[in-house]
Amino acid sequence: MAKGAGMIHPALATMLAVLTTDYPLAPGEAESFLRPAVESSFNRISVDGECSTNDAVVLLANGASGVRRDDEAFAGSLGEVCSTLARRIVEDGEGTTVLIEVKVTGAADDREAAAIARRVATSQLVKTAAFGRDPNWGRVLAAAGSAPLDGGFAELVPERVTLTFNGATVFAGAPIDAIPSLEGPLLALELDLGLGPGTASYLASDLTYDYVRINAEYTT
Amino acid sequence: MAKGAGMIHPALATMLAVLTTDYPLAPGEAESFLRPAVESSFNRISVDGECSTNDAVVLLANGASGVRRDDEAFAGSLGEVCSTLARRIVEDGEGTTVLIEVKVTGAADDREAAAIARRVATSQLVKTAAFGRDPNWGRVLAAAGSAPLDGGFAELVPERVTLTFNGATVFAGAPIDAIPSLEGPLLALELDLGLGPGTASYLASDLTYDYVRINAEYTT
Repeated sequence: MAKGAGMIHPALATMLAVLTTDYPLAPGEAESFLRPAVESSFNRISVDGECSTNDAVVLLANGASGVRRDDEAFAGSLGEVCSTLARRIVEDGEGTTVLIEVKVTGAADDREAAAIARRVATSQLVKTAAFGRDPNWGRVLAAAGSAPLDGGFAELVPERVTLTFNGATVFAGAPIDAIPSLEGPLLALELDLGLGPGTASYLASDLTYDYVRINAEYTT
Repeated sequence: MAKGAGMIHPALATMLAVLTTDYPLAPGEAESFLRPAVESSFNRISVDGECSTNDAVVLLANGASGVRRDDEAFAGSLGEVCSTLARRIVEDGEGTTVLIEVKVTGAADDREAAAIARRVATSQLVKTAAFGRDPNWGRVLAAAGSAPLDGGFAELVPERVTLTFNGATVFAGAPIDAIPSLEGPLLALELDLGLGPGTASYLASDLTYDYVRINAEYTT
């Protein structure tokens, strides 16, 4: 079970998630399974880049199944459940009309890939373009090139970059005249930097009239 | 002269500014006057947190006035002109209905104050609350407390914090039942952290239906 909607951003969100299992875990063991599952799911989503103090993910295990342990299978299932819930939180985000899947490959390393994915996923211009169903490769590249890293910016060499919108290549070292299909509720942005082995994924919502309405009309 | 509107954020904006003067400067001298003036003006504004590659501030001096130099007076005037132009860029920002003046005092140092001011000035929730004319102190404090600094967060002790909206104190260690006047085109947010001598100012626009319209309906 998970609850989200607004103020969703890694590390500190208005998010509450409770996972229950009858898999046999000894006291204290849950954390070692939960942390990696959270890292690649709940910590890779952003609705509005906003933080909160109410962030919690809890894993409860009662061992009632009495099954023989297969930790690899359990870790895999736990990761799958976390990813599904994290995805649903973004789909259910305030005003969301499209789920943006940001996938960065070819970065210098995973940390650089994550910084770029996070910047693209939180860019107001990428998010309004997604709402407008516009394949605006310039906004994606501008966001990627402005990803903050170690007091400077992440590395990006335009000539090496490939960018696809829902599988259609719109940029490969230079703009390509393509017309991607963007009408549906999913926008897959795949950005390959052509520089190294670093990869990262991120899920984000678009920025819409309804997001503004919900958060401007709310009164304290 | 200055041109802005969208993609306005320190260091890399879609901003062009040209300043001309007949004050007598020797070749190479302009930079030492311009840099500090830009630091406290054009580098302290944000419309949407977005960057661009077209950022430029130019100072041209032809010495035609032939006046006796008074560098302190010139630096003061230059700073005033830069501040006025920077302010007008934000007032003219895409969809702006209210100019948000963020002033942070009492931070551990100026760098910490700037990190907090920048985070408040770019928070989607602060900006939608400003559009809705809601004195939402919680969003301001949540944004301040999530200001990134050196891989962690800026320091904030709620019990020491004072926050005013257009001069009316809404929080002083705890919420205060006040009704600030927020109907006009200006929102002055003064946040005193009560921790040290650090100060910083920032100007921001609100986040509105028109911002979304302009950037979602735009087609590449």
